[in-house]
Parts: sequence; C-alpha cells; structure tokens
Amino acid sequence: MILHLKASVDANRASEIAAELKAAHVILPGGHVLVTSAKVKSVDSHYDQYIQESFVMESDIQLASRKYLGETRTIHLGDGLTLGGSSHNTVFMTGPCSVESKEQITQAAELCVSLGVKVLRGGCYKPRTSPYTFQGLGLEGLMLLVEMREKYGLKIISEVRDFSHVDEVIEHVDVIQIGAKAMYDHGILKACGKARKPVLLKRGFGSTLQEFVQAAEFILSGGNEQVILCERGIRTFETKTRFTLDLCGVAYLKEYTNLPIVLDPSHAMGYRYGVADLSRACTAMGVDGLLIEAHPNPNVAKSDADQQLDFPALRALHATLGPIATAVGRNFV
Amino acid sequence: MILHLKASVDANRASEIAAELKAAHVILPGGHVLVTSAKVKSVDSHYDQYIQESFVMESDIQLASRKYLGETRTIHLGDGLTLGGSSHNTVFMTGPCSVESKEQITQAAELCVSLGVKVLRGGCYKPRTSPYTFQGLGLEGLMLLVEMREKYGLKIISEVRDFSHVDEVIEHVDVIQIGAKAMYDHGILKACGKARKPVLLKRGFGSTLQEFVQAAEFILSGGNEQVILCERGIRTFETKTRFTLDLCGVAYLKEYTNLPIVLDPSHAMGYRYGVADLSRACTAMGVDGLLIEAHPNPNVAKSDADQQLDFPALRALHATLGPIATAVGRNFV
Amino acid sequence: MILHLKASVDANRASEIAAELKAAHVILPGGHVLVTSAKVKSVDSHYDQYIQESFVMESDIQLASRKYLGETRTIHLGDGLTLGGSSHNTVFMTGPCSVESKEQITQAAELCVSLGVKVLRGGCYKPRTSPYTFQGLGLEGLMLLVEMREKYGLKIISEVRDFSHVDEVIEHVDVIQIGAKAMYDHGILKACGKARKPVLLKRGFGSTLQEFVQAAEFILSGGNEQVILCERGIRTFETKTRFTLDLCGVAYLKEYTNLPIVLDPSHAMGYRYGVADLSRACTAMGVDGLLIEAHPNPNVAKSDADQQLDFPALRALHATLGPIATAVGRNFV
Amino acid sequence: MILHLKASVDANRASEIAAELKAAHVILPGGHVLVTSAKVKSVDSHYDQYIQESFVMESDIQLASRKYLGETRTIHLGDGLTLGGSSHNTVFMTGPCSVESKEQITQAAELCVSLGVKVLRGGCYKPRTSPYTFQGLGLEGLMLLVEMREKYGLKIISEVRDFSHVDEVIEHVDVIQIGAKAMYDHGILKACGKARKPVLLKRGFGSTLQEFVQAAEFILSGGNEQVILCERGIRTFETKTRFTLDLCGVAYLKEYTNLPIVLDPSHAMGYRYGVADLSRACTAMGVDGLLIEAHPNPNVAKSDADQQLDFPALRALHATLGPIATAVGRNFV
Repeated sequence: MILHLKASVDANRASEIAAELKAAHVILPGGHVLVTSAKVKSVDSHYDQYIQESFVMESDIQLASRKYLGETRTIHLGDGLTLGGSSHNTVFMTGPCSVESKEQITQAAELCVSLGVKVLRGGCYKPRTSPYTFQGLGLEGLMLLVEMREKYGLKIISEVRDFSHVDEVIEHVDVIQIGAKAMYDHGILKACGKARKPVLLKRGFGSTLQEFVQAAEFILSGGNEQVILCERGIRTFETKTRFTLDLCGVAYLKEYTNLPIVLDPSHAMGYRYGVADLSRACTAMGVDGLLIEAHPNPNVAKSDADQQLDFPALRALHATLGPIATAVGRNFV
Repeated sequence: MILHLKASVDANRASEIAAELKAAHVILPGGHVLVTSAKVKSVDSHYDQYIQESFVMESDIQLASRKYLGETRTIHLGDGLTLGGSSHNTVFMTGPCSVESKEQITQAAELCVSLGVKVLRGGCYKPRTSPYTFQGLGLEGLMLLVEMREKYGLKIISEVRDFSHVDEVIEHVDVIQIGAKAMYDHGILKACGKARKPVLLKRGFGSTLQEFVQAAEFILSGGNEQVILCERGIRTFETKTRFTLDLCGVAYLKEYTNLPIVLDPSHAMGYRYGVADLSRACTAMGVDGLLIEAHPNPNVAKSDADQQLDFPALRALHATLGPIATAVGRNFV
Repeated sequence: MILHLKASVDANRASEIAAELKAAHVILPGGHVLVTSAKVKSVDSHYDQYIQESFVMESDIQLASRKYLGETRTIHLGDGLTLGGSSHNTVFMTGPCSVESKEQITQAAELCVSLGVKVLRGGCYKPRTSPYTFQGLGLEGLMLLVEMREKYGLKIISEVRDFSHVDEVIEHVDVIQIGAKAMYDHGILKACGKARKPVLLKRGFGSTLQEFVQAAEFILSGGNEQVILCERGIRTFETKTRFTLDLCGVAYLKEYTNLPIVLDPSHAMGYRYGVADLSRACTAMGVDGLLIEAHPNPNVAKSDADQQLDFPALRALHATLGPIATAVGRNFV
Repeated sequence: MILHLKASVDANRASEIAAELKAAHVILPGGHVLVTSAKVKSVDSHYDQYIQESFVMESDIQLASRKYLGETRTIHLGDGLTLGGSSHNTVFMTGPCSVESKEQITQAAELCVSLGVKVLRGGCYKPRTSPYTFQGLGLEGLMLLVEMREKYGLKIISEVRDFSHVDEVIEHVDVIQIGAKAMYDHGILKACGKARKPVLLKRGFGSTLQEFVQAAEFILSGGNEQVILCERGIRTFETKTRFTLDLCGVAYLKEYTNLPIVLDPSHAMGYRYGVADLSRACTAMGVDGLLIEAHPNPNVAKSDADQQLDFPALRALHATLGPIATAVGRNFV
C-alpha cells in the first residue's frame, strides 16, 4: 500500500507514522510517501487526517507499478538528454566491455562523437566468474572515463560490482550500472537509493521479472526515482547462445511498470554475429535505449572478446537503427 | 558426411552403397544423395568412382547446414508465392487458434482477403494438455479450411497432432504444420519426409536448437526439401509470460542453417498485450514469415483465448509491419 | 468434476449423460464414471437421480488426484507382482537401453535372474534425435524380449516411440512404456487408455508436473487405471549432467497424486559415475520402483553408451539398495 | 596451472614470481602456491628452480579439483568436530530461517541439544526480495546466536548478505554462510578468502556448477582452505516446488571436486511436506551434511513460513536419518 501524506505533515511526524505502520518512508520532492507491504490493504481510519491519497497494490511491485504511476518515468541523463517519459527517445549507448587503456577508451569515445552517440559505457570493476582472469582497472578506469566525459562531453555509465567500491562509482559516473550478478545486493541497492543519479539496474540472469522489479523497489523506496530497467538475457537450457534475450519479459515490463527500459543484446547473444539483428529487433520493440559493446580490436579484448563488435560493424549497425526507430515512432539518439 | 553421387549412378547401385555405408539415401531432383552419421569423416577410396562431391560435417546437422548449402532454401507455397531463397519476403499468416465453425473461419478468411494476407491458419487437431477440454473439429475443420481456399484463393496451413491423422493433413493443406509437442514424432517426421508439400516445423518448447534442426534433418533426409523452421517460444523459469521467444536462437538459426524461419509470437507471449510489440521485433529481425493468431471474438474462443488478437487489433498491427520490413530490406507480403 | 453414476444407470444412459455434460465417459469395473472439465463446479439438479457420488476438483488433475482417491493405486505386473497400493514394494527394473542382439539381451536376462530382479527393460523403437544413428530393432527386438519372458519368467517393459507401432508394443509387453518425447502424443495416450496393461508414463523433459499428470489423465479417462508415473530428469540450464532429476517434483507427485512412481536416474544423469549415488537417493525417497540401464559392454552400446552400467557395477549397486529400502520401510524386489 | 613453490622460496620472491606470471599467490601452511589461468599450460623453464610440483588444469576449476587434490578436504568446525576428509560424517545442522527473538532461538538451541545436534543455524541479515518485508535482526541476532553457543556449546552458522556487514559475520560465527544470492559477490568472496574460518558457500539458483566451483576458487585462492559447497536448489521451469534440488549436480561435484558437500532441502522444496523425503534422499547420497530449517511455530515465522518444519516433525525426521546413514557407511552426527 502506498500512502501520499499531506503537505502539512512534517518529516518528524511522517517518520513516526512510518514506524507505526512498519512502512518504508520515501522522501520525494513532492512530499512524504510511505510504502507498506502489499499484504496491508488498509490502514486505521485515524490516519486519514494525514493521508492525501492512497494506492492499494496487489503485489510488492508498488512504486514501479503502472497502477501507481500510469506514465513511464522520465530519467534525466544531464544536459537536457532524457529517456522515458514523453521523450520517445531510444538512446544508443556504446563502448567496450572493459576499460583497458587510455588509448582504447579514447578510440571508443571518438567513435561515439563521430556517430553522434551521447553515452559511453565501459566496465572498471568486472564481476568475472574466475579469480584467474582480468578483474578490471578499478578506480584508474573510472578516472579514464571521467577524462573522456570532460574532453568529449559524453555521459558515462559504468558498473558497480560489489559494495566495497559503490561510493567511488556513484561519485564519478553519470549513470550507475548495477550488474546482473549484483541485482540482489542490498548494500548496493540501498546506496543507490540514497544517490541522486540515474541507476541502470540489470536483470539477474536467473531472476524472475517479479524479483527484478522488486529489486528496483529497493532503490525507489530509498528515495531515488531515477531507475532504468535493463534486460540482458536470462539463463535457459539453450547454450548455443550465451543467454536468451527475454523480449516477452520486456513486453510485460512495458505493460505493467512505469520504469524505462534499456536492452543489452550483446550480453544476451554472447557472439558478434547476432548482435545486429537483435539490436534491430530491440529497436522495433520501442524501448528507451540500447547498450551495445564495441571494441577497437575485439580479438585482443581482455573480457567478452566474442561478443564485442569492431568499429566498422558498430557503424554499420548504427546506420540501420534510425529508420526502424522512425517506423515505430521513436527518436533515435 | 554428405555424398552427392554421380548422375551415372542408378537407384539400385545408390541403394546398395547406402546400405554398405549405413547412410540415409535421399532422392532429390538433382540426383542421389547419401548422408552418413557426422561421426563418419571419410569413406573408403573405392567409393570415389561414384562420388561427385562430398561434404564433411562436424555435427548431425547436415542437410540443413549452411556449410552444405550456403543459400537459404526457397519454399514454394503455390501460385508463385515463395518464402526464403532470394525472395526477401516476410510472409504474414493469420487465422484462429482453432477452426470452430464455418462462420468463424469465413470471417477470418475475409479478414485475410481484406488485408491482402495470403495464408490462412487454423487448427483442427488440437494437442491440448487436458483430456477434458475442446480437442478440435478434426477432418470437419480441415474441410472448412479447404472450402476457404477454394472460395478465397488463400493458402491454408494446419497442424498435425499425432501420426493417426497425418495422412489427412498432408492431403488437404498447403503447408503442413508440425506442432511443438510433436517435434520429436518419428512417425510424423517420416511421413512428412515422403510428402511433397512444404512443412512448417515448430520447435519443441523444451528442445535445444540442435535437436530442433535435427528433427528437420529427419524430413530433409526423407527427401522433402521444403522445410520451414518456426520458433514459438521456449519454456524457461519465467512464468509471467507463457513462454520466452528465443530471438537469440533465431540469430543462431539464421547464421548456421539454410532453412527459412517463421516466428510465432502469439504462442510465445500467451497474452494479447505483447503480441504487437513482439511482431514488430520479429519483423525487424528480417525473418521469412510471421504466424499470428486472430479470432473474431477472442473472449469466446475454445482454445488460447488469452493470446488471440481481435480483428481491429490485428488490422492495426498489420499496418505497422510494412514500414519496418521496408526498413530492413524485406518485402512484406 | 468427477461423477460416479449409480449402478442402476446403464451404458446407454451413461453415454447420453456424458454427451450432455461434455464429459469423458470412463467405464471401470466399479461402474460408469464421468469427468467434466475442472471449470465445471456443479451440474444441474435433475442429474442427481443418476449420481452416486461427486467430486469437485480445482484443476484438470482429477482421476489422478489424492482428493479423488486417497490411496496410491495398485498396479498389477502379473504373477502376483504388484507395485503401489499397500505393497510397499520398490521394484527394481533393469536391462539395456536398446535391445541389440539375442546374445546381448540374454546376458541381461540372466543378470536379472541371478539377482532376483523380476522386470527386464529394453528399447526396440528408439526415439533418437538424429536420423543418422541406430533407430532400434523394432518388432524383431520385441520378439527377443518376448523370448526372454518365456525362457526366464521375467516381466518385460519396452517403449512405444510413436503411434505407428503402438499396437505391436501393447500386444507384446507386460508394461507399456511411453517415452519422454512421446508424453504428449494423443494417439499413443488414447491407445493406452483402451489397453488393459500397465503403462509407465515418462515425464517429458520440458513438461511441468501439471502437464505430466494431465497426460496420465488421458490414459485414466480412457478407462485404463494402471498408470505409473516415471520421473527421468528435466532439462535445465545445467549441462554438466544430461538432465536434472527432479526429486522435489517427486515429493509433489507423492503428496498430490494417487499414481505410483518409478524413477529413472540413468537418463537423468547421463553418465555412469553418478547412477549409483542417485539410485540410493531415489530408494530413500520411498518410491515404487527404479529403472536402471545396464549393458554387458557399455562401450560398444548402440545408444546411451555413457550412462549404462556394466554388470559388475550393476551388481554392486543392487547390493546396496536393499538396506536403504529396509531403512525406509519398503520391500526391495 | 597450479605451481607449488619449493620451501626455499621466501615470500618476497614468491610475490615477484606471482606478479611475473600474473598468478594468484596463495599462502598455505605448506608453503607458497601460485595459480595462473587455466589457459596457461606451461611456464618458462627458468622458473623450474623455484617449482616443487606443478599441475596443469583444463579449466578454471583448479584448487577445488580432484585432479589437484584427490581426497575430499577436511573442514574443522571446532572442538574436534569435522566434516569431509576421512571422517565419513554426515553433520546435521538445524535452526530457524531467521533469528527472531531470544525465546525463539533458545527453543531451537534446546531442540539441538536434546537431539545431540551440534550445529545451530539462524539468519540475521536476510536477503529478501522485497524491501517491504522483515530484513532480519542484524548484529542483535548475531549476538543471540553467540549467546546460544556460549550457553549450549553449539557451533553456529549464519549468512552474510552483502559486503557491508561481512566483518561482523566473520567475527562472530563458527561457519560463515554465503547465501545463494551473494555467490558472485567479490567483496564477500575476497573477505572470506582472508578469513580463517570455514565457509559454507551456497550455489546461486541460476548458477552453473562450473560457476559455483569457480566462486569457491575465489575463496581458496585467497588462502582459505576451509570451503564447503552447499546445493540448495536451482531455478527451473517447474514452479509447483520453490526450486529443484540438483542431485545430479551433487553427483558431479562429488566426482570432480575435493570440497565437502552439504545439502539444503528446505530451500529447494519450499514446502514442509517434501522436506523429510528429500532429507532421506540426500542422506542416502552420502553427503557431508544437511541444513534443515525448523521453527518452534512455523505459522508465525517472519520469513520462509511455508518450508520450516515444526519441532515434532523435525524430531521425527531426525530419527529416520541415522539408519540410512549407516546403510551407506556414514556417521550421522
């Protein structure tokens, strides 16, 4: 149950009520909002004096639900660039899996500039499955991304792997990416709930849609309204491809949640050869953004070598997406 | 291993060699073709005198492999309508889940005519999971489809459920559909191998891509070259949607097999609300056809009531697909 | 809804009522039973005169439900050997994946005799995934099994692959096995419903428990009460083993259905090394039988070479199961 | 590749070599061990002077592999209680899902004492999927467990949810539990690698066996040899049960890894009714321990209410396990 308190209720009283109701207390620009478990279907009538409006929800998807907020939320990436809401933007984001060197990330940044792409991605803390492979450049990588932002005016997005460096990532990036393996990490989710920057939350590859959106609720109920959902493939019995991109799930998320959606076909596919076709499919779904891995020389990439596009392939793909976006009434940015 | 025998080898000798090599003997318009297990990597040199050309394959995907035949096969639906090959056609097929009555299937046929759609679908033998629900009209339904073909000049496609009525279906339809639950049915696969009509083979929802294409090999090695693959969603842990449409798998099939591909987003989604978005995604993938369920009054449909579009929704969807097909260089038919 | 008609209702009247109610009409030794869809929760009061007892079910699992019949059904394998009911028997069944030759199946039969095992298995119609591998000896294999029954007094179980040879299998075996890939085959299910021999129905590896039991309902509603469920592993994302034996599912089946359960750890594991440990686990679950593949020389087996035990391993395993069965209150037969 | 350095190589030189080889440097009581990526199959011959023994591995499962260490590792729980190695112990661990109050955890501790059970479990930091439900007592709960240890002489095991409180858990418990949702958490894995206490690592429900053991490699390569693997069910398409206990996977782990294995049937099943049968199956598998949830009053439990046994059921189950353990040659502790 979601309760909008009246403007007249001050923070102290709101906190007291939250404690009485065992509710999450969300402080938004519009005022105090309390959220109780979905099992609570009503509150005692003596609270009526404090309540402006209330919403009874049938599941623990609450703040993210279209039943609470009918419109897709607007995410502000900075400098007027938005995603979701009434923008109808499909924002293209690209860059390498891992930031590996200044030269490599500079090449990626210049590719973005030449294509008019506004968001550069690059991993610095890599959630590798083996301790015996490249683990990322860490803070040094983050600072290289910051340098690219300053030099080229790009927005930067990078992933937080675990709670130990969450503050560093929050401080430096424009969009905080929570990776699939960290989707359930309460430490990270809570830190992101307190942050005031957009968060791109990737779906765990073994996570249901319900759990995915509930993870977003951790951030939303922490007071951060800027949450983007990212589908990047789920694990199924099929192993010819790395994962299975769940576009049926995307249709569900578009129908039932108010969060914008970005798709990551590179991780889903795991191989270069399918990325272009899938990117076109994603664009035709009418989603809010795409995240595509590209590397100046994929064969020597230190992670995900098989799935990163080289720059000519990325340019060729990019050229085909605009017409599809137009055909489905979106602005390709 | 695939062996093309020389034109000079007659049928008897070809049969003898097939027996000696424990090979499947495929009689094609171009001549005799033998196929041994992929484990056989060479044959004794005294067979050289009979062999025109040979192909060593690394898996039991052989006749369907792009390593054998680089071009996508051309399927002839009749009256000059083709799919695959150099046609670049994306063929739209629609109709109800089940043929229920003459009135209902006539309405569906007239919808096709009004939209310029050339292929009408309708199930007559329904592979229901429960014995206590509608099992289809059987031969009576087939004859209604035949009536529609004669009256409206439409091609008809309908599903064979089990071996007991395979001959009836083969006799009457233009495209024989093998349903997901019958994908492994050797009786049906062998009967379709002997047929000389196009076969649309649906992927079992628990079947790997390897098994799917191997099932097609049963038909191809029976001598029927007219096989279309149809992805219709696989079963995963996600249950908010009925199945999960595997577009990563479609990218794999496009890359590695020479069989045309039709997609069925209706069964994958299981709910009306996502069918339009998914159909647009499928079209942008550049596939050879779409199979969409539509019913004049879905709420009273005797099967799959939740996923069938009503006619206004089908018309609205149909109108959006042409521009996407054009954007990806396909003819929307 | 299940309706037991009164003894006074004759077959004609029962048929008429079945038609009026769109119900399956099951003729059992005890009398006429009608089964309507689970959506039907009551029937018009004018039918009361014909109804002895009625059961309202909440799903299309009806005749198989413990809510209908609280006790596990008793299956009669012949010569007084039973499974299920009050027998508390755990029946061990073994033999090769495929019947390959008289010598091979004789060795398997003699192994059974030497261990006191009463049921011999062997496949004759193999549902292979590739057309380019051994497809089984067919009727010739069945006749070899029959010879073993006559010579050694063993019961024989063999699999029907598709409808084209279902009558042959029904005629010759003691227990008709429906393989995982044929679980949805209506032709087979209906033929088995009319048979009067025990049917061992294997769960499709992509089938839910609900669908599995509903397939059993096809047989039960055909009038054959002798149905055994067999769990043999489901397909999951894990590929280090061939399938994943679903013992949680077995716990569900034991709780909610009245059908006896046999487990097949050989197909689930796919490798010899785990079969013994899994067989012990299955025995400790307190199930009604085990189906274990064994071959006199697994390395040259024509199918499933990796998972068949050799005879010394089978003997060693067999020796360990009795004490476990005793520990859980079962008779190891 | 694993390299055991000679005793004569001091820590500085070992570190230098590790850096040169890009190897993990593990300091064990026996000396310095370096581990390179499995892709490295040999090292330059001038390193021969430092190397005592080397092991070439074919995958990034290295320190955990039976090819490196043939015997199952021995885990010391304290006071002479061991698990794995030559102990043949099957250690029973029980307690509530969440520590909820002093009264509740005292009742659980007294249950342990009365049954001779030596290890008490209880969650303090709960990785809930919803922010609107009970999140655990945190440090307060940990201190209650510590109190139980002091009062009753029990060993205690509790879960770390995220990196933010990993130090608290490591400090206070006897066995550090890493939950399924945190299996990939590098922050936690690294902290546990530095700890000198046993770690029970649960398999992520969407994680392959390969990934699971690689997560253990993070801890082992950090220098902590006391790692226990815990299978607790994987996520599959079947939803009648909460998860699917993967005993085929357990057979794989027993065959290929040197780590002891504990099973958690409670979380796999998700419902009380199957826990006893599954526990018996697990015991018959011959594993090193069981983790079973029990609560004095499951109906009012603040988490996992459906799957916790009440005390009479727990006692009844416990009584049946000893004879099975004996039948498979294990000591039930």
